Amino acid sequence: MDQVVAENGVQQVELLFAVNDDHGGVIVEMKEPMDSKAFLSLLRASISQWKQQEGFRYHHAEPHYLMLVYWIPEAASTVPANATHRVGVGAIVMNDKRELLVVQEKSGRLQGKGIWKIPTGVVDEGEDIFAAAVREVKEETNIDTEFVEILAFRQFHKVFFEKSDLSFLCILSPLSFDIQKQELEIEAAQWMPFEEYAAQPITQKHGLFKYISEICLAKVDREYVGFSPLPMTSSFDDQVTYIYLNNHDLNQ
Amino acid sequence: MDQVVAENGVQQVELLFAVNDDHGGVIVEMKEPMDSKAFLSLLRASISQWKQQEGFRYHHAEPHYLMLVYWIPEAASTVPANATHRVGVGAIVMNDKRELLVVQEKSGRLQGKGIWKIPTGVVDEGEDIFAAAVREVKEETNIDTEFVEILAFRQFHKVFFEKSDLSFLCILSPLSFDIQKQELEIEAAQWMPFEEYAAQPITQKHGLFKYISEICLAKVDREYVGFSPLPMTSSFDDQVTYIYLNNHDLNQ
Repeated sequence: MDQVVAENGVQQVELLFAVNDDHGGVIVEMKEPMDSKAFLSLLRASISQWKQQEGFRYHHAEPHYLMLVYWIPEAASTVPANATHRVGVGAIVMNDKRELLVVQEKSGRLQGKGIWKIPTGVVDEGEDIFAAAVREVKEETNIDTEFVEILAFRQFHKVFFEKSDLSFLCILSPLSFDIQKQELEIEAAQWMPFEEYAAQPITQKHGLFKYISEICLAKVDREYVGFSPLPMTSSFDDQVTYIYLNNHDLNQ
Repeated sequence: MDQVVAENGVQQVELLFAVNDDHGGVIVEMKEPMDSKAFLSLLRASISQWKQQEGFRYHHAEPHYLMLVYWIPEAASTVPANATHRVGVGAIVMNDKRELLVVQEKSGRLQGKGIWKIPTGVVDEGEDIFAAAVREVKEETNIDTEFVEILAFRQFHKVFFEKSDLSFLCILSPLSFDIQKQELEIEAAQWMPFEEYAAQPITQKHGLFKYISEICLAKVDREYVGFSPLPMTSSFDDQVTYIYLNNHDLNQ
């Protein structure tokens, strides 16, 4: 942005609007889109004004904005780290004939291999895990369900770029039974006898598939207890959040 | 970058090096830092060359790079979503005198309030949850521990920017007992009789503090079973990953 000579003859420079944050830095929030050339010019002037010549780093970006940070204090930075994980769900849904709700996907590693798997998906930004499990089953198969418990989860590193994946194995009760598969992602969907599902070669060999099958059996036939979501309020704010815990053992 | 007139008189334009990706798009990877003005100019020329006038979006950014995406196919984008969660740990460490390892922090919401809390921290990129719990306790108090179980977790939305937090409540066994607090973040640290910890007003009122106290008691005095990490190999690659499950019930 060009320098402006004010009426009193003092040079004025237009700068990015910045507010001090709680960590000893400044936050520049762009409420309106700005031409990138104009932004660059403003940013340069602002940085110079803040008496810093260089050192800004990318912090994180979302589709419509980019956050840059420059840590001014000499002490180690306490700016919150960027998000590191994507969160996923896998859904065990069994009817009272011991048939498991399974799908074949149109893309991904298992594409075209004829392998039946449980419905899986990614938790949306701001979405609760239990809600994501119900939504994914509905989207992929049109089956309505009620969430029961989280039975297990696994952490997987470097899944995309340098990020990790935390996926939660859930069990849900079916409330409807007529499958209508989603066309875009799902090649096939069916209620499959559990023993047939468990007899697939991949379920015998592959660590995760094997665990899913064993945990499912332990839950259905024995007393396997997972974690249930309980609503919880904070005295700091009014947000209702969920804590997932072994509610059976807590209430013994 | 300025246009260059080549020897044959044809104009040549320097473009960003781009490779086609698996999703029908192009990936531009910047291996070397580049002056931002030069980058902008190159990017503009490249976009124009790719016959796209606009539509690039920020995808994600890390300190040293920024990823932009432009989805060319008409079908819905299948580019992996950005990471949505930060992952945290809270550590219950109790000695055989029923004393809990607790700290007071120098910053954050509880700063200066005299409230004793369990050690907490953020899981690093690529770090396993159980490793993070052991590391955080060591960093804050210099106590060595062995990981036992995950007892519960909670999901919290819009914690920083639009991102969520998934924090895992862990229990660890102490292997050493002499506390040396970390100077930068920790105001005070001590072994505190559990009943004294639980009697703090915040533990009576605040949802999360109350649950931590109840779960701790259920674990120490009763038969509360959490999730244990078990190593698991994938037939897809050689990465060892961990699945967290109710190992007690699985092996009944």
